Amino acid sequence: MSFKVPRGTQDILPGESAKWQRVEEIIRDLCRVYRYDEIRTPMFESTELFTRSVGETTDVVQKEMYTFEDRGGRSLTLRPEGTAAVVRSYVEHKMFGSPDQPVKLSYVGPMFRYERQQAGRYRQFVQFGVEAIGSDDPAIDAEVISLAMDVYEQAGLTDIKLVINSLGDKETRDNHRAALVAHFEPAIGEFCSDCQSRLAKNPLRILDCKKDHAHPLMATAPKLTDYLTESAAAYFADVKMYLDTLGIAYEVDPNLVRGLDYYNHTAFEIMSTASGFGAITTLCGGGRYNGLTKEIGGPDAAGIGFAMSIERLLLALEAEGKSLDLHNALDVYIVAMDEAAKVKAVELASTFRTKGIAAEIDYAQRKMKAQMKAADRLQAKFVLILGETELQQQVAAVKEMATGEQQAVAFSDLVTYLQDKLGGQA
Amino acid sequence: MSFKVPRGTQDILPGESAKWQRVEEIIRDLCRVYRYDEIRTPMFESTELFTRSVGETTDVVQKEMYTFEDRGGRSLTLRPEGTAAVVRSYVEHKMFGSPDQPVKLSYVGPMFRYERQQAGRYRQFVQFGVEAIGSDDPAIDAEVISLAMDVYEQAGLTDIKLVINSLGDKETRDNHRAALVAHFEPAIGEFCSDCQSRLAKNPLRILDCKKDHAHPLMATAPKLTDYLTESAAAYFADVKMYLDTLGIAYEVDPNLVRGLDYYNHTAFEIMSTASGFGAITTLCGGGRYNGLTKEIGGPDAAGIGFAMSIERLLLALEAEGKSLDLHNALDVYIVAMDEAAKVKAVELASTFRTKGIAAEIDYAQRKMKAQMKAADRLQAKFVLILGETELQQQVAAVKEMATGEQQAVAFSDLVTYLQDKLGGQA
Repeated sequence: MSFKVPRGTQDILPGESAKWQRVEEIIRDLCRVYRYDEIRTPMFESTELFTRSVGETTDVVQKEMYTFEDRGGRSLTLRPEGTAAVVRSYVEHKMFGSPDQPVKLSYVGPMFRYERQQAGRYRQFVQFGVEAIGSDDPAIDAEVISLAMDVYEQAGLTDIKLVINSLGDKETRDNHRAALVAHFEPAIGEFCSDCQSRLAKNPLRILDCKKDHAHPLMATAPKLTDYLTESAAAYFADVKMYLDTLGIAYEVDPNLVRGLDYYNHTAFEIMSTASGFGAITTLCGGGRYNGLTKEIGGPDAAGIGFAMSIERLLLALEAEGKSLDLHNALDVYIVAMDEAAKVKAVELASTFRTKGIAAEIDYAQRKMKAQMKAADRLQAKFVLILGETELQQQVAAVKEMATGEQQAVAFSDLVTYLQDKLGGQA
Repeated sequence: MSFKVPRGTQDILPGESAKWQRVEEIIRDLCRVYRYDEIRTPMFESTELFTRSVGETTDVVQKEMYTFEDRGGRSLTLRPEGTAAVVRSYVEHKMFGSPDQPVKLSYVGPMFRYERQQAGRYRQFVQFGVEAIGSDDPAIDAEVISLAMDVYEQAGLTDIKLVINSLGDKETRDNHRAALVAHFEPAIGEFCSDCQSRLAKNPLRILDCKKDHAHPLMATAPKLTDYLTESAAAYFADVKMYLDTLGIAYEVDPNLVRGLDYYNHTAFEIMSTASGFGAITTLCGGGRYNGLTKEIGGPDAAGIGFAMSIERLLLALEAEGKSLDLHNALDVYIVAMDEAAKVKAVELASTFRTKGIAAEIDYAQRKMKAQMKAADRLQAKFVLILGETELQQQVAAVKEMATGEQQAVAFSDLVTYLQDKLGGQA
């Protein structure tokens, strides 16, 4: 009997996990200065929340959800995305009653979609997302986009591109929808069965189809942008003005639609333009979802947010040949030459750690030489050697690995000695 | 239609989430100095991993698992605990081949158990845990315990108690098991049906029974400690010696058994002794699980670890009336008096954030007075006021809220001005 990680998922192992911690640190710091407080919702929600908000006709709901019944017979679904639960929480906890709107929230955590396996796609993947709920100020659209761009910038990505579009308001979408039906209906028999059923239910989804994207009618389809109402167009113009103010470059792509039903007005994606990044270039997607709060039983509130995959951010860094600035060095390795020295080593390691000094000792009864090799492998900055003589004299032989310098330091002076030396190196 | 968080789970909202971030920061820092690198395993594993490692006769496996089939017909289970998956990963990724044993790993993340609802128990809860796999050095037992104690100390808890026991080796357990059967068999009819089936399968579990704990035969049951082999007793003596060396106080409780089958030798729990903490006082539990790697298909390796609930750590802090040291203040709120000032406010906020200064502006078209009130509610350290005059003169009126002092600062000097002032406050 041997066990493997479930298909489509991965373990993030030491070394790799340090990169995740660094990205999350960047995210935490940016959320602090942008004021997007963290919210943590459960890994699963009632299934209906997702069918209702993500949309019954979407691929996510139709094909990709992990749905199960709990022992009480409730239908639960592992969250396929983060927005629905955050909006559910905003309504459930009556955050709309706060005098400070929008309520600005962020999350980082696993999402679950049962997708075909391919490079850069996992069935469990981690998204960082933010939601600003309770304001339809176009300046907040720019703020949200700016936050996403800053994450990539601070992580060190340079080959990225922002693409924006407006999906307009309800009137825009109704008019565009009628035009789409008129456009596709005569030739709908040439499209896949999914598209055929989308025609009546949600023709906008046709533009998103992975199978039929090369059909000639796709390129000539009526563009949402041509149906924008005056107020929707003015809103979009303001968003662009704020992006210009912030010095954020963007392309407008009238074909940009998002894969979930709840979006309107501003939609955006950030893609990697690194060569050799692979077929799926989208790193981050987001947009406005005015009215989603009402759809799930709350008052009508405006909202906007994005979600970005951490896996794909790390892949993009790799594609660009960039590495994150990590800091997980071992400060000191304590070599113990006998049993009595081992006990002292345990005590000293504990003392060092209390002072924030990363310390390691041998737990494998290895000889001195093997312990020295371990210290090398772990790239210890300092090695302390403890033997019979040292214990008698209450000193440790301290070797600075970068310089090779060695000197005897009294036990009682070790913390100060190391702190001085390490402080100087940092 | 209105939606609620799934039964037995909770949203962690802003304010509360800041406490979680602080605890996780303490954990990250301690794992760095103790050298327990983070590992992240998926939220679910193949069901058999848990029945095999946690034990078929345990409550967790029999009653509390969220088990479901994925769309490919595989039986998956949301992880009820962290050790099984980490050990699975250690074996799958052949970490036993590393020259540096033990491999020291840590994790923080949600676990899932379908339990009856009660105070301090959630169906999704978060555990911090560590595993040191590949060493049977008693010093590592002490290290693991020391790390757990340090988390509580750094979080500010003082009313805690460490309880330890030894469950011995295989010979110890076989002898003790025979004694238990002989002890309970004559009166087994007086015990619950679970205990009756435990008698043959795993009589040690009887001592753990929540229903029968008051039965007189419980108190007189043969104690594992009396059956320790010589080598198991020597091992336990060494663990205690190292705890003494580290100055860690403990009680030995011969009745301490852990709820999962895989433990042997050292077992420990850390409890809150705060008055009014409630019935369930255990904050952290752990122990040795030599042989678990073999049980799930790998080579025979020794291991030890613990898991602690973050929810219960926070509840214990509350019971002690302690609060965490949080740092999520708003540095500056920018008040904009008209549309042109608003655009400048957007630009300045962005500039500040780039420099690590937390900044907020109004996104609700509020009048100046309402914006000032918002700045107060958000406890901004500084308020910047921008109106027509300020824009003309390229200055902002800056008010330091703690002192009430106000002065005009040129736009180009704002970052330096604020950094100086904020640096001084920190």
